[in-house]
Amino acid sequence: MALELADPRDQEFLLFEVFDAASVASSEKFAAFNEKTSKMLLKEARNLAVKEILPTNKLADVENGHPDGIKLENGKVSVPPSYKEPYKKYIEGGWLAMSDEEEWGGQGMPHLLAMACGELFTGANCAFLMYPGLTHGAGNIIKEFGTDKQKATYLKNVFTGKWGGTMCLTEANAGSDVGALETVAKLNDDGTYSISGNKIFISGGDSDLVENIVHPVLARIEGAPAGTKGISLFLVPKIRVNEDGSLGEPNDVETVGIEEKMGIHGNATCSLAFGSKGNCIGELIGEPNKGMKYMFLMMNEARQGVALQGLGFQSASYANAVNYAKERIQGPNLLEAFNPDPVKVPIIQHPDVRRQLLLMKSYVDGCRFLNYYLARCFDLATLAETPEEKDKWMGLIELLTPIAKAYSTDKAVEVASSGVQIYGGYGFIEEYPQAQHYRDAKITCIYEGTNGIQSMDLLGRKLGMKKGKPLMDLMGEVMATIEKAKNAGLTDIADKLQAALNKVGDCAMHMGKTAMSEKIMDAFGTATIFLEICGDLCMAWGLAERAAIAQQKLESAKKKDAPFYEGQVTTAKFFFDMLLPTAMGRMDSVKNTSAAVMAMPEAAFASK
Amino acid sequence: MALELADPRDQEFLLFEVFDAASVASSEKFAAFNEKTSKMLLKEARNLAVKEILPTNKLADVENGHPDGIKLENGKVSVPPSYKEPYKKYIEGGWLAMSDEEEWGGQGMPHLLAMACGELFTGANCAFLMYPGLTHGAGNIIKEFGTDKQKATYLKNVFTGKWGGTMCLTEANAGSDVGALETVAKLNDDGTYSISGNKIFISGGDSDLVENIVHPVLARIEGAPAGTKGISLFLVPKIRVNEDGSLGEPNDVETVGIEEKMGIHGNATCSLAFGSKGNCIGELIGEPNKGMKYMFLMMNEARQGVALQGLGFQSASYANAVNYAKERIQGPNLLEAFNPDPVKVPIIQHPDVRRQLLLMKSYVDGCRFLNYYLARCFDLATLAETPEEKDKWMGLIELLTPIAKAYSTDKAVEVASSGVQIYGGYGFIEEYPQAQHYRDAKITCIYEGTNGIQSMDLLGRKLGMKKGKPLMDLMGEVMATIEKAKNAGLTDIADKLQAALNKVGDCAMHMGKTAMSEKIMDAFGTATIFLEICGDLCMAWGLAERAAIAQQKLESAKKKDAPFYEGQVTTAKFFFDMLLPTAMGRMDSVKNTSAAVMAMPEAAFASK
Repeated sequence: MALELADPRDQEFLLFEVFDAASVASSEKFAAFNEKTSKMLLKEARNLAVKEILPTNKLADVENGHPDGIKLENGKVSVPPSYKEPYKKYIEGGWLAMSDEEEWGGQGMPHLLAMACGELFTGANCAFLMYPGLTHGAGNIIKEFGTDKQKATYLKNVFTGKWGGTMCLTEANAGSDVGALETVAKLNDDGTYSISGNKIFISGGDSDLVENIVHPVLARIEGAPAGTKGISLFLVPKIRVNEDGSLGEPNDVETVGIEEKMGIHGNATCSLAFGSKGNCIGELIGEPNKGMKYMFLMMNEARQGVALQGLGFQSASYANAVNYAKERIQGPNLLEAFNPDPVKVPIIQHPDVRRQLLLMKSYVDGCRFLNYYLARCFDLATLAETPEEKDKWMGLIELLTPIAKAYSTDKAVEVASSGVQIYGGYGFIEEYPQAQHYRDAKITCIYEGTNGIQSMDLLGRKLGMKKGKPLMDLMGEVMATIEKAKNAGLTDIADKLQAALNKVGDCAMHMGKTAMSEKIMDAFGTATIFLEICGDLCMAWGLAERAAIAQQKLESAKKKDAPFYEGQVTTAKFFFDMLLPTAMGRMDSVKNTSAAVMAMPEAAFASK
Repeated sequence: MALELADPRDQEFLLFEVFDAASVASSEKFAAFNEKTSKMLLKEARNLAVKEILPTNKLADVENGHPDGIKLENGKVSVPPSYKEPYKKYIEGGWLAMSDEEEWGGQGMPHLLAMACGELFTGANCAFLMYPGLTHGAGNIIKEFGTDKQKATYLKNVFTGKWGGTMCLTEANAGSDVGALETVAKLNDDGTYSISGNKIFISGGDSDLVENIVHPVLARIEGAPAGTKGISLFLVPKIRVNEDGSLGEPNDVETVGIEEKMGIHGNATCSLAFGSKGNCIGELIGEPNKGMKYMFLMMNEARQGVALQGLGFQSASYANAVNYAKERIQGPNLLEAFNPDPVKVPIIQHPDVRRQLLLMKSYVDGCRFLNYYLARCFDLATLAETPEEKDKWMGLIELLTPIAKAYSTDKAVEVASSGVQIYGGYGFIEEYPQAQHYRDAKITCIYEGTNGIQSMDLLGRKLGMKKGKPLMDLMGEVMATIEKAKNAGLTDIADKLQAALNKVGDCAMHMGKTAMSEKIMDAFGTATIFLEICGDLCMAWGLAERAAIAQQKLESAKKKDAPFYEGQVTTAKFFFDMLLPTAMGRMDSVKNTSAAVMAMPEAAFASK
């Protein structure tokens, strides 16, 4: 039987053997989610992902206007027809708001379990999942910052997927520089605002999956300060909502175009015109001029979502690659190269194919550890018994979010590229599944803050926050893993992890100092590499933690379980032998913090 | 004025300041190619590339059957209509056989100059260039191994682009394992052969650019040995050629399908059926059962061609990225971050954008050096006055070919990915040019021997050839650059290059030993990383050589030339500070030669 998406054995290993996911069931809040229930839910999620969602991924991977794809006709977007049925099942199953309160239509699930289910859903079809994913994000804004009335009007409809949601930040001249936006809000006599402006790159900006769409829109109230300090957040429904909650007149929100993209073809990337007829009404969320602050608070969730997309692409590409490598017969075993009539073998027996699969597996396993760990932090913060404890987990979330986002997505591109390579020429043919992952995955490095923006967030905000405590907490977690590895007899791995930890610690100190010196620009020219070594350290940590636990389980493992545990230890050995040394070298380049980046004359980049 | 394709100043710097391209004009053979003529030809090539070929690149980047793209109708392939006129100009200009003898329609140009022109052509539109590129490869087979009669019949028609050519190796079950092919050749009474079999992935397998197509086909003569030892090479024309050279009856060669690919959409990737009606006639080339040997000899040219494609994608993506970064205004200078109303700047002023551009430029410049150096070796071999000297240059070509192929193409994917990133969200939109490079470039890592196959070639054949002399010669060339750098006062760069050279030398020794030990499989599991560090060393070498020369020119440079030379030195500093340390770490992983690659239980790659 072929593997689809994330390896189920590995998901259970992480949940129940590494992260003790079932322990949360001893709390009142998560009492329903014992091991048995959790496994059942995970199985249900896999069924839905594999049987209903996955088949739509390739089908909808067509140009705009194709009968199987997205269409914009008469100002209305229709989603790929194949999405209708899975969407219905997805919302009926309550998967849109897995971790939210039941009063708003959520399932109240622990974040860790939701993360594992989410990996399956997004790995099956990222473009599809973006519709409910962004809807959830919009719901969260209402939940966190909305008035009781706003919650009553919108929230349950959104969290149950009856209505959709988006995130309207970007404009043609305001991408990474959100503060440059030009959309304007004018206060009306009744307390509502008239919105006017054009937004681009709005994922799922319109769809016929839902009855209505709620757009959180960033705009500047007339007369507000320039830049980010004058930005407010508004709720703008596609169709106005009457006092009794029923749908009223259409609002003045027009879909003026959809982009032809390299990937995620099944998701409509819309240009939206708000108020082009002067009749777009929105409600303020929270206080005026605090829109950026609200968006920032929500951004973490969105970035964790994109990190998970990166992991999903990795899992899916890896599953295909392993299956193909086991089936595809090509060439003899290398040791038989001089045998005139050798037996031909599956390519999984060839050294370079194995190396590529292990490289892929290292990142899949490492990024799964990192993303699940992040989700686990939410659960531990929720159940924390003291403010200090809660603060620890929230700090780790803050610190790890930009790392998880940028590293999981950069590695998604690398893993998807290896996934193409394993297929050889067939990897480049669209009939096979690997090219799509390579095309689709690239967007995850760009949206919700480019990976360059993530590195600025890490260096500029997260590294020094709370006097560096989150970083110290992370190092403490790694130290605990080093002890575990030593106790399991994996001294080589423990020693190498210790060396990496020390070196990253040195780099962090160096980067912090440099960023506060006159060399600040040089520091920011190195920020991306600094983020990368932090991610490398997380891979080393995660793979060591996995190996330490697996090594101890191996002693009493049943025969059928042994290969899995051996695989954990061997993957870690591979990473520490073959990938960590490169990362150690990369740390040297962080310490160099080259002045060349800023010294380069602009005219020297190109002669004309 | 915006940069298009390869930087013209940099091309001239390499040709006339680094490689002394004009010196070949003192020989009788290349007397016509002095500096003035060479610059004129390069300018002509740029004109043709930029004005005629480049505009067709995006236009033809559409699905099969689109009016602007390739079509298969009634068994006939038509190329994108926009290709017709540029093809005419390309062959009229004699660009198809730049370095070949005039008697066969060539221009007799030095290889180095041809390489520089070729970078412009393939950078403008790789899919287009594959038609004449493969035609040239087929012509070379006839030139090297054909009888006088075969030459008289085919060669001039091929080298002048009147007829096309292909390369028919791959079958559904014979990809990397060419020896597994099943196409059969049966000797007829008149000395011809009846060919029957199916080939796939035949680039430019049919086209309406040309009157006829000559297919070199690998097949097994009935009764020949199994595997590679029983393979012969045949010339199979699409249309049979009469005794007087005129075209006769169609041969039994049928295009049964064209692939829907991720990229290079403008080139028809054909499935060809030879002899499905029992009536396909071919001529043997050379001796029976020596087909693989002939193909291997030709493979070097094909692999150098793909290396050049990799460079072309890098150059084109970099040119776009620099232009965009200079134009796109986004956000203030970082030092103004707390200014309430700061001036917004072009993104080329942002540290992380500069870092990415310098990363791209490092590889563009380094790979341009490597590819041009390889071409220069051909010229020096041609002009060599002793067999020893000729042998030296031919040995370097053998050694550097797999490195140039795999490294230039792996970096093409990396550079194209950065090129998307510089554009932010616009990078993912097909209206802009960067997504296409990202999609197109990936094939270069796969065809003409996957990059894994290149690394096996390097470790298994090239490293130990001639008792390691080519490697020693390469190290000698690097040593000469170290001296130059020292003399130019670039001691830091010289010291770091020396350290890298020593470490790669150690790794080579280690790999050679390991490949001859019982750990041979582990060695081959490390072969790709070994190739990568050899490529890294070549980058360091090339950038140091460039910097050493530029540093000396700087002393007396005119004001307008200074930024270019400063850019050479600064790019080298960036590489040695920021990228070489990672490569030094990678060398440690080569020395580790992990046993984990082969130790991994097959069942541990996936649990089902």
